[in-house]
Amino acid sequence: MKALRYYNRHDFRLEDVAEPDVGPDDVKIRVKWCGICGSDVHEFLAGPQMIPFDRPHPGTGRMAPIIGGHEFSGEVVDVGERVSRVGVGDRVTVRPTLPCYRCHYCRRGQHIQCVILGTIGASTDGAFAEFVTVPEDTVYELPPDVSFEAGAYVEPLACALHAVRRSGMVQGATAAVIGAGPIGLLTLQAALACGAEKVIVFETLERRREMAERLGACAALNPLDGNPGKEIARLTDGLRADPVFECAGKPAAMLLADQVSGRGATIVEVGVMMETCDFPFLNLFMREKSIIASQGYVDEFPTAIAYLASGRVKCDPEMTTARIALSNIMEEGFHTLAGAHGMEHCKILVTPEG
Amino acid sequence: MKALRYYNRHDFRLEDVAEPDVGPDDVKIRVKWCGICGSDVHEFLAGPQMIPFDRPHPGTGRMAPIIGGHEFSGEVVDVGERVSRVGVGDRVTVRPTLPCYRCHYCRRGQHIQCVILGTIGASTDGAFAEFVTVPEDTVYELPPDVSFEAGAYVEPLACALHAVRRSGMVQGATAAVIGAGPIGLLTLQAALACGAEKVIVFETLERRREMAERLGACAALNPLDGNPGKEIARLTDGLRADPVFECAGKPAAMLLADQVSGRGATIVEVGVMMETCDFPFLNLFMREKSIIASQGYVDEFPTAIAYLASGRVKCDPEMTTARIALSNIMEEGFHTLAGAHGMEHCKILVTPEG
Repeated sequence: MKALRYYNRHDFRLEDVAEPDVGPDDVKIRVKWCGICGSDVHEFLAGPQMIPFDRPHPGTGRMAPIIGGHEFSGEVVDVGERVSRVGVGDRVTVRPTLPCYRCHYCRRGQHIQCVILGTIGASTDGAFAEFVTVPEDTVYELPPDVSFEAGAYVEPLACALHAVRRSGMVQGATAAVIGAGPIGLLTLQAALACGAEKVIVFETLERRREMAERLGACAALNPLDGNPGKEIARLTDGLRADPVFECAGKPAAMLLADQVSGRGATIVEVGVMMETCDFPFLNLFMREKSIIASQGYVDEFPTAIAYLASGRVKCDPEMTTARIALSNIMEEGFHTLAGAHGMEHCKILVTPEG
Repeated sequence: MKALRYYNRHDFRLEDVAEPDVGPDDVKIRVKWCGICGSDVHEFLAGPQMIPFDRPHPGTGRMAPIIGGHEFSGEVVDVGERVSRVGVGDRVTVRPTLPCYRCHYCRRGQHIQCVILGTIGASTDGAFAEFVTVPEDTVYELPPDVSFEAGAYVEPLACALHAVRRSGMVQGATAAVIGAGPIGLLTLQAALACGAEKVIVFETLERRREMAERLGACAALNPLDGNPGKEIARLTDGLRADPVFECAGKPAAMLLADQVSGRGATIVEVGVMMETCDFPFLNLFMREKSIIASQGYVDEFPTAIAYLASGRVKCDPEMTTARIALSNIMEEGFHTLAGAHGMEHCKILVTPEG
């Protein structure tokens, strides 16, 4: 079968590989759609970070080359002998995390902290391929009113819902989202779906601000225009926002989060910030604020699927800026997103069909 | 009466002033003991920060000069006509915060966030004096087994208990405390009192490490010796600490908190950090940690009093390194604490008697 394998930085190869075997607890899926995540682009430009490169992954035993792709949907084509909850023909999506269920953190239910956590599409083969095989416990059925395209958004939406859960957001909140890329736009919608009264978005790119307004932001502001702290104070009767979701992964965004957050507010770090940030912790102290990191999800997949089914969260076609074939994934996918106009895109979906 | 009034930086004056009036909702207290807080020393060396200096405080209407002192105990000598819960002769301590009970935050029960929060000893007269007058709602009775000396520790212990509450610490936790000054030593004891199984303390000064060990630390380490991250991993089977209380208020302490905290851990910022800190937020993200600021208290005073009464928390004589007279407060108090050997002290208590 055709598959995109990650070898190293700037070395992703579209190759013909054998179809995956089906172990007794496994589910084999014919991939329909798989989204390209920011972390995939990062792995291409600045990796290897997620892909085990110089020694086997302690959980999966695998190392590069590994087939990428972790935001996907598909149809079940085969199941192992011990699989009981999933059957051939089921329309499904998959939670990419593979907790060991045995370590200190797994025993406490904190699976995302698993000390040998594996990830489909990073430490074992993913869905930039015609077929992918995954353990049964990672599989979630899609209801008929969630399209395969929408099914490819369940994983990033679960990230966004996890961020809202981590924030402890109260009903009627005035939230802010910094950065209106795919995760920012899903976090905006997740916050509204979970009871925020209004969400103010900060984003430097006009096209992304327009998307944010279409998807429910009460205001989408350019943080480079004027004084964002004063502007949000004006919009909120002086209270500013709580929670604030930092979805840009930049030091300037973390400093902006400090400016636009109110007394006692929670700042959620959703973006991946590679640089350090010279942060004024005195401001955190004086207004008793918090910074809470949110990485991945625990079991937000059923909620993500339900919100897509009910239309509370809209993703396709609203957030899909290109649908491409796996055979063109490097040129039309990675090189496009990494190129000069990459930020004009939101989500690019990839299909192995056609 | 004799009182220490804060005029400006390096300008605190011991003066004769009129005794305070007793309004209808007020309680007049003859001060027994009042502790010198780090914030008082900071106000002397680097203020004015808390004292309203160039315009009246929006809550109290007061500005410098103001009598300092907010960690105190005493005996009630007079009460206003509407006071019903407190009587003459009661042994009491006082919560220094004066919420307005009317603003957005007070209406939600977040009194510490009050937009015009006043503070006894900072924005209205405090207890470095023979008498102090306070509103009835701030007064807490001391049981017979809490001495007046111990009563002067209720306020900083309430800060420590608030930090433990903000941490969300679970039963059986392995906690760490960075900085073993008065707040660090009280936080160590508060964590143990609230169910931590062990607490590891990091402190550069030997005398403070010895106090930490006497007050229950399972280990007191010098962070400048060796590799603190590896050392705590060795002591905790690789898990490191959760929560970690940063009680030093230094950028190096915040970076140390990152090193010694485990997966999913909460770092509580208890220290007042005047400088910015170049923080690696990627570490926070990768291990889904949190930084939660803790400033002051809400209503931890009854618990603080109960823990002192039962002996769960020990403060006097264990933490008291000097008892001085108000008439000598500048030389034996402020100049001592601000001097070359100030860090050899823990808490200095001041009495207006004798």
